[in-house]
Amino acid sequence: MYAIGIDVGGTSVKIGLFTDDGNMAEKWSIPTRVENNGKDILPDIALSVLQKIKDRQIPIKELKGVGVGLPGPVDSHGVIRKAVNLHWPDTFNVEEKLSHYLGGITEVKAANDANVAALGEAWVGSGKGCGSVVMVTLGTGIGGGIIINGHILAGFTGSGGEIGHTFVQEGETEICNCGKTGCLEQYASATGVVRLLRRELEAYPDTQSSLRYGEPDAKAIWDAVKAGDSLAIKVAEKFGYYLGSSLANLASIVNPELIIIGGGMSLAGDVLIPYVRKNFEKYVFHASMDTRFALATLGNDGGMYGAARLVLA
Amino acid sequence: MYAIGIDVGGTSVKIGLFTDDGNMAEKWSIPTRVENNGKDILPDIALSVLQKIKDRQIPIKELKGVGVGLPGPVDSHGVIRKAVNLHWPDTFNVEEKLSHYLGGITEVKAANDANVAALGEAWVGSGKGCGSVVMVTLGTGIGGGIIINGHILAGFTGSGGEIGHTFVQEGETEICNCGKTGCLEQYASATGVVRLLRRELEAYPDTQSSLRYGEPDAKAIWDAVKAGDSLAIKVAEKFGYYLGSSLANLASIVNPELIIIGGGMSLAGDVLIPYVRKNFEKYVFHASMDTRFALATLGNDGGMYGAARLVLA
Repeated sequence: MYAIGIDVGGTSVKIGLFTDDGNMAEKWSIPTRVENNGKDILPDIALSVLQKIKDRQIPIKELKGVGVGLPGPVDSHGVIRKAVNLHWPDTFNVEEKLSHYLGGITEVKAANDANVAALGEAWVGSGKGCGSVVMVTLGTGIGGGIIINGHILAGFTGSGGEIGHTFVQEGETEICNCGKTGCLEQYASATGVVRLLRRELEAYPDTQSSLRYGEPDAKAIWDAVKAGDSLAIKVAEKFGYYLGSSLANLASIVNPELIIIGGGMSLAGDVLIPYVRKNFEKYVFHASMDTRFALATLGNDGGMYGAARLVLA
Repeated sequence: MYAIGIDVGGTSVKIGLFTDDGNMAEKWSIPTRVENNGKDILPDIALSVLQKIKDRQIPIKELKGVGVGLPGPVDSHGVIRKAVNLHWPDTFNVEEKLSHYLGGITEVKAANDANVAALGEAWVGSGKGCGSVVMVTLGTGIGGGIIINGHILAGFTGSGGEIGHTFVQEGETEICNCGKTGCLEQYASATGVVRLLRRELEAYPDTQSSLRYGEPDAKAIWDAVKAGDSLAIKVAEKFGYYLGSSLANLASIVNPELIIIGGGMSLAGDVLIPYVRKNFEKYVFHASMDTRFALATLGNDGGMYGAARLVLA
């Protein structure tokens, strides 16, 4: 049996052909055409999928289904609400619409992209074999996904796992992308640590640091941490406090077996984990103390894997 | 079909006989004999259940099963870890053990008592008809339960839903029952609001308050809030901040349809909700803004209902 796993982003759509044992047979991508309220996105996807099935001469009865991860809240019935990055203004059933463009040949399942990435890691990535997994994605923002017994916790309106917008700091003056203040994303995302750095540089003008020059990004900060830069280490400590205590609260509530850290900033590697782990252990309820931590292993392909799993589970 | 729903507490065991449509046909209770490491508790329960079945001449094939809620972490396989209130020192499979004492006549399912109370409310209480429900129980401590698609989120080690021990306050000097500091339970439980009151009385020695006399409990505080007592209202505001912001973070992560407030302090009634709701709306991610709030309706029977539901779901 085969499945198609699709990860729809704001600039490109990544499509993978999978076998039901979790192996990717082929991947390709097409541009995301967001013009005209993104009305071509789903027809483009359908066309590309149908073409591939034809080229590969895959019999329809050998295709278990098509799974899609999308940048917006998707509830458990397949209804998506305002996907800003795709320029979709409406609330509609994206599973039904894509199924229509596919000519109704196979099952279609959709979910939020961060949730789908978590499902991919739980299926064949660093969470393989775990029943309950939380994944937190540290990129420009912070995404999250919760997998319970192999299934996504989608939530009532499709926004399950939004740890990036949990409240962590009273008195913050800058405003988060979501409109609130004091969200985890403002401190522990790739842009968040750059903000933390700016504040440390201002607070300690006399402390030498390689990060005073140019426009250091998250990678530069973690490189400086590895090199022993004292201001960078202060930033890492604050990052660890915010992310570690937030993951502690999440673990006290969800009690997962494993927490996976992914996203662009996770490429800094094992240097992050001790800062997070130390604070996690300080703040977590004792019954969740032994929650394991791991880095994501599927990288940018995680979304395709998880999307395929939507129809293979 | 029938089911037995059992709520095991530290002083008594409440037992209910239910029909599969969610009606309680009869309830009774037996003492919890905690002496000798609580070794008589399960045999006592089995004896009482078998006697009732015999008295009522219920054919075994008409009994769907026996569900039990227990004061301790119970994982999804029925393994309980150290139930302090029952004086049980060991980790063991409580489903298998109770089934053994029942002579293997029927299915046995076990879960944590706060989780089971949430399941009861989600089944036939104020959450009836809702797919995803969070219940928070405000008593001496704070318990919690998360119901997703009609099933308990038990967690890897059986401690899912422990919102009472999420970290909410840096710099707290008093220690929580769990051994940490700054837990939600220290501010928003029935004992927590009494602590908050003590601090307000000390901070504002010249402010008149009916609560300066005697040893006011949580009920007295909420009565004073209703009567317009300014110090009591300060306590209610702080309670609302801690519980509202914590439930906001929980809702941003779990995105439930409904949040149910139960436990002894919920008997104060509708006076609590606005203090919680105001802060909830301030701190929650926009996609979970419309989460509804309700008070629990099953009172002390909720645990029995939920326990019966364990085997009727």
